[in-house]
Amino acid sequence: MGQTTNDLKLAIVEAIETQNKELIQQLIPELHAFDIADIYENLTEELKTYFIKFIPLEDKVDILPEVSAQSAEAIFEDLDNKSQRTLISELKDDDRVDILQRIEPELSVKLISLLKKDQQDLTESLLRYDESSAGGRMTTNVGKVHINMSVKEGIDNLREIYENTGTLARIFVVDDDDKLCGKLRLRDLAFNNWDTPINSIVQEANHSILANEDQELAAKLIKDYDLLALPVINEFNQLLGVITADDAMEILEQESTEDIEKIAGISGEVSFNPYMQTSIFSHIKKRFPWLFILAIMAIFSGMIMMRFESILTSLFLLALYLPMVVSAGGNSGGQASTVIIRAMSLDEISLQNSLKVLWGEFRIGAILGFIIGLFIASISYIALPLFDVEIPANITLKNFSIAIFLAISIQITASNIAGALLPLLARKFKVDPAVIAAPIITTLVDVTGLLIYFWIIKSFIF
Amino acid sequence: MGQTTNDLKLAIVEAIETQNKELIQQLIPELHAFDIADIYENLTEELKTYFIKFIPLEDKVDILPEVSAQSAEAIFEDLDNKSQRTLISELKDDDRVDILQRIEPELSVKLISLLKKDQQDLTESLLRYDESSAGGRMTTNVGKVHINMSVKEGIDNLREIYENTGTLARIFVVDDDDKLCGKLRLRDLAFNNWDTPINSIVQEANHSILANEDQELAAKLIKDYDLLALPVINEFNQLLGVITADDAMEILEQESTEDIEKIAGISGEVSFNPYMQTSIFSHIKKRFPWLFILAIMAIFSGMIMMRFESILTSLFLLALYLPMVVSAGGNSGGQASTVIIRAMSLDEISLQNSLKVLWGEFRIGAILGFIIGLFIASISYIALPLFDVEIPANITLKNFSIAIFLAISIQITASNIAGALLPLLARKFKVDPAVIAAPIITTLVDVTGLLIYFWIIKSFIF
Repeated sequence: MGQTTNDLKLAIVEAIETQNKELIQQLIPELHAFDIADIYENLTEELKTYFIKFIPLEDKVDILPEVSAQSAEAIFEDLDNKSQRTLISELKDDDRVDILQRIEPELSVKLISLLKKDQQDLTESLLRYDESSAGGRMTTNVGKVHINMSVKEGIDNLREIYENTGTLARIFVVDDDDKLCGKLRLRDLAFNNWDTPINSIVQEANHSILANEDQELAAKLIKDYDLLALPVINEFNQLLGVITADDAMEILEQESTEDIEKIAGISGEVSFNPYMQTSIFSHIKKRFPWLFILAIMAIFSGMIMMRFESILTSLFLLALYLPMVVSAGGNSGGQASTVIIRAMSLDEISLQNSLKVLWGEFRIGAILGFIIGLFIASISYIALPLFDVEIPANITLKNFSIAIFLAISIQITASNIAGALLPLLARKFKVDPAVIAAPIITTLVDVTGLLIYFWIIKSFIF
Repeated sequence: MGQTTNDLKLAIVEAIETQNKELIQQLIPELHAFDIADIYENLTEELKTYFIKFIPLEDKVDILPEVSAQSAEAIFEDLDNKSQRTLISELKDDDRVDILQRIEPELSVKLISLLKKDQQDLTESLLRYDESSAGGRMTTNVGKVHINMSVKEGIDNLREIYENTGTLARIFVVDDDDKLCGKLRLRDLAFNNWDTPINSIVQEANHSILANEDQELAAKLIKDYDLLALPVINEFNQLLGVITADDAMEILEQESTEDIEKIAGISGEVSFNPYMQTSIFSHIKKRFPWLFILAIMAIFSGMIMMRFESILTSLFLLALYLPMVVSAGGNSGGQASTVIIRAMSLDEISLQNSLKVLWGEFRIGAILGFIIGLFIASISYIALPLFDVEIPANITLKNFSIAIFLAISIQITASNIAGALLPLLARKFKVDPAVIAAPIITTLVDVTGLLIYFWIIKSFIF
């Protein structure tokens, strides 16, 4: 099935490139909006303009929510006023708001003005919610019945709206004031007697979310409690809309990407735009701050090396192990911080068990450090004499190997604790743990690693 | 709403710790199975044994799928044969298979033997699918109607099974041979005349997946095409089961965690067990291989330092910049590889536009390198004289600053390209790109960075 879609996609791309009009027209109805959007996004500017003309207006409604802001602008700007009005009115309200939030403000204002009065009012009220809040993400097309209806009245009521409603998998029950009083499944209506009163079959709506809460909380509730739709309410418990499971999937994916980028030292919120549609300038803007801060921090490592010049120059063999001691710390600290950050964003670590986590990471670091330190030190003890490496007379090979063992194992243990401790501390002080990410820890342990290394060498063999 | 749940959870944890039986019994029915599982997992071994006795058998059915393998074993082992039989039979078939795959083989065999013949056969046939395949993840409780039925017959047919069926949001239509011929929404049945023939309202099932395909592909189809349920078929197009949107969410989360861990240099598949339930030994086993390989690789950096001993000792000021040059490369290479790996796992980069990606990353690296190199070199040019740093007579401050500029900007540019190139190459050669992760790139560019640094210094100022 996936194969067929891929073949179709390749065929249409070829048809576009060879400007085979008939084939394009024939293939478009075969493809899902998601695939057409994907094809469109990967065309050159020229071919985009060529291809978009073939897509009927009613299909553009499905494609718009799937493309980048720039593409959405281009698609609108290619149309006359009348078609613009049709397109913007036919979008689902949550998609419309999402697109209006992302495109150029001028175009956004113009498109809103094309809407009919009631759609305009609804759109403007939705635009008041923050883009990343539950209200900013919800759809107002919700399957809704009144608590005093019978099953038959409920079905009749839903029949009128059902073609425009995203999900009827969950139906919400409200009272005269539009307050949420419970939920139903469509099956409860479909399989019950028509004269059954809804208030006898209504179930408690255990989960709901306030419109101004973060969309991430909505996604978590949907995931944790396996919900198909989460009702969004205001402070008076009035039903405003729903967030559906497919929204939750998108939100969770965006959050994962944000975590991943922060772990790699990349700043800022993840934009809706995929990699290929992000400008070089935006990429640079997101990467520069950390790169710069980390470069400045690295000066401290350099200062420590300067400080121990006499030790390094009198036993230059130390340079052979220096990068290893330093990077082993960075790597183990990076592992520990990544695992802890991920566990925290999946809500697996509570404030109460932080100490247990630290004790665990201490043991993990100590065991890893012991094994790797012992291995490197043993190899050195055996191999160094074979290479005729010069060691000053006042230093024995045994002492040298012990010092290398201590430096590596202490550095890995300490880095592991630091890698676990920093994200936990960040959360304690209400900073996003993912910001205290691997590169920060790597750079910090570079500094401490050099100190540990020279200090052990100095006090142990000099 | 989230607040209330948290308060309840804190209250019950306190009740468990103070062994307040009445309060525990009173609070359990207030909580969702997910929350009870969460509370249970975070108790000490002793309190787990105490708390589990309060949970009625019918609630254990909902809790089992949410707990770790060890906890599932403990819960079963605490029961007599009769209760074990009730519990294992009442689980949904996909949950049952999932649990049986995770627990000790002996216990698994015993539990299967307790099942009735038909459940035993079904379970055994499902266990034949790989845990990470679509067949291993599907549920066989699927809303299914025959193509020759009327709407009324369809509803009657579903009524019999609907309480045990996970989702009726999508109903699948089959023929005499159980072959998939299309799909329906429950609303299509609920809102149509009872004597409408189903074959007049059936819609094409555009997406399906073979049982032995990877579950990740199933999750991608569900996400990309906003499906509520994806039918799983065999090679004869016979309907075997469905994968639902909430399964897809779990699969995607697991995949993200795997990507994140690989980016941080942690091996292996992500286990179902959350952080706190994973043993110290498993943590070490997953982290050791990379840590070890990277430590060995770092020896090459040490060898390069040894090789350039004379340069470093004759101008020890070079040590001040050495860590910065090396780590700036590691950081920018890590950023580039992470962004590319994530974009690839979201299917944003195709093989065809790899060259475009590399050209983009070259420009990003060059601009970042130019800015950061220029800044550091300018500061050095101004600040070094103020600190009375010794520079040998044959080297001018200007030449020294230009060399630092060149080293930093070349290192950042080269690392950025390496960071983008390696994951692209990995995919080309069918290796998981996330394996060529940040730590590998960091360690590689440590080596090349040192070479670039000393080579530029040697040819430019000596």
